[in-house]
Amino acid sequence: MDEVKIIEVKQSVFEDNSKNAEFLRERLKQEKTFLLNLMSSPGSGKTTLLLALAKALKGKLKMAVMEADIDSAVDAQTLLDAGVDSIQIHTGGMCHLDADMTRQGLEKIGFDSDLVVLENVGNLVCPAEFDTGASLNMTILSVPEGHDKPLKYPLMYETCGLLVITKIDVMPYFDFDAKKVVEYAKKRNPEIEILFVSAKTGEGIDNLADLLIEKVKKWTN
Amino acid sequence: MDEVKIIEVKQSVFEDNSKNAEFLRERLKQEKTFLLNLMSSPGSGKTTLLLALAKALKGKLKMAVMEADIDSAVDAQTLLDAGVDSIQIHTGGMCHLDADMTRQGLEKIGFDSDLVVLENVGNLVCPAEFDTGASLNMTILSVPEGHDKPLKYPLMYETCGLLVITKIDVMPYFDFDAKKVVEYAKKRNPEIEILFVSAKTGEGIDNLADLLIEKVKKWTN
Repeated sequence: MDEVKIIEVKQSVFEDNSKNAEFLRERLKQEKTFLLNLMSSPGSGKTTLLLALAKALKGKLKMAVMEADIDSAVDAQTLLDAGVDSIQIHTGGMCHLDADMTRQGLEKIGFDSDLVVLENVGNLVCPAEFDTGASLNMTILSVPEGHDKPLKYPLMYETCGLLVITKIDVMPYFDFDAKKVVEYAKKRNPEIEILFVSAKTGEGIDNLADLLIEKVKKWTN
Repeated sequence: MDEVKIIEVKQSVFEDNSKNAEFLRERLKQEKTFLLNLMSSPGSGKTTLLLALAKALKGKLKMAVMEADIDSAVDAQTLLDAGVDSIQIHTGGMCHLDADMTRQGLEKIGFDSDLVVLENVGNLVCPAEFDTGASLNMTILSVPEGHDKPLKYPLMYETCGLLVITKIDVMPYFDFDAKKVVEYAKKRNPEIEILFVSAKTGEGIDNLADLLIEKVKKWTN
């Protein structure tokens, strides 16, 4: 079994993050690499979704994952064990990644994938404040968290282009209003795209894979 | 129906938070008020647990709640509608509360309760970095989030005296290892107390209420 590579990244307080993000986005465009910045609460199922997504994308796109966490390498190891190209980024206690920290990870994992997913630190507040240079921000909201989250975490939903509602298989056990979550999310960002999926049953995973393939093609052409 | 009071608090960058926290703790001791700093991921069920707790404590302790959120007043309104004394604190975009922001909330809600609960911003990273002046830090981990959270969010579990595992009624639908979560949490803090509850079925709520009554009595005597 391969052991996961752990990268310790550092934040520079002197740099202009917006400028760094624009530089990185430009470079990604030239390298024909689509960077997906995946954000959510802790425990919403980011890694499990990525496992299902990697399976659905097999043979269609070359995908790699950068797992960002304050500590541990459990998620990157899980992906690696399942055959998904991945590295672990440690943020040195930081609650988010900025564009230069993201670049440090990309230099390690390389630019030869069509799709690189940055699994940001589990946090609905701080990651939304920093442009990572990503081609797209995708937010996960799991059914057990409740449909009111777009009301409480405005910036996360304003900066997110694609919202994926996960764990829809447990909908019968929770008071989750699917209509309301769409209404609240669109209030924050009228252009937001919304998909409902379950990584457990596989429902909606192919739709998500197809949507990402379309976006990656647009980016790399 | 009463409308909830919303307090906009501001962080001062010039103040010494540790000193403020010690001052506040000393004052709370003199006022015979126990301040519980409640932290968790977004959507772990803090407000629902507080509703169940308020019911269990009725007639035994005078309890009030300060709800902190970046936006919205849904939680404070829910509590107020259920007859629980509560105010809403808005953090102006901040991902956590510090001791002086907590003091501003306390000045509004007053010091005449035995137990004041500060429902911190839903976030497993930043709130752990700031001493609010609380008598006790309590962290909620809900079953759907998974048992690996103490591995990924070390500081939250190191600074937490009481860990409450919530939503145990949905245990059959998730791969949650109760033994492992205890092992991982104790690795972060060997002195941590751990309770398992369900606000939905009521399981464990009386144990939590009894434990808090005991701690409040110790504080106020």
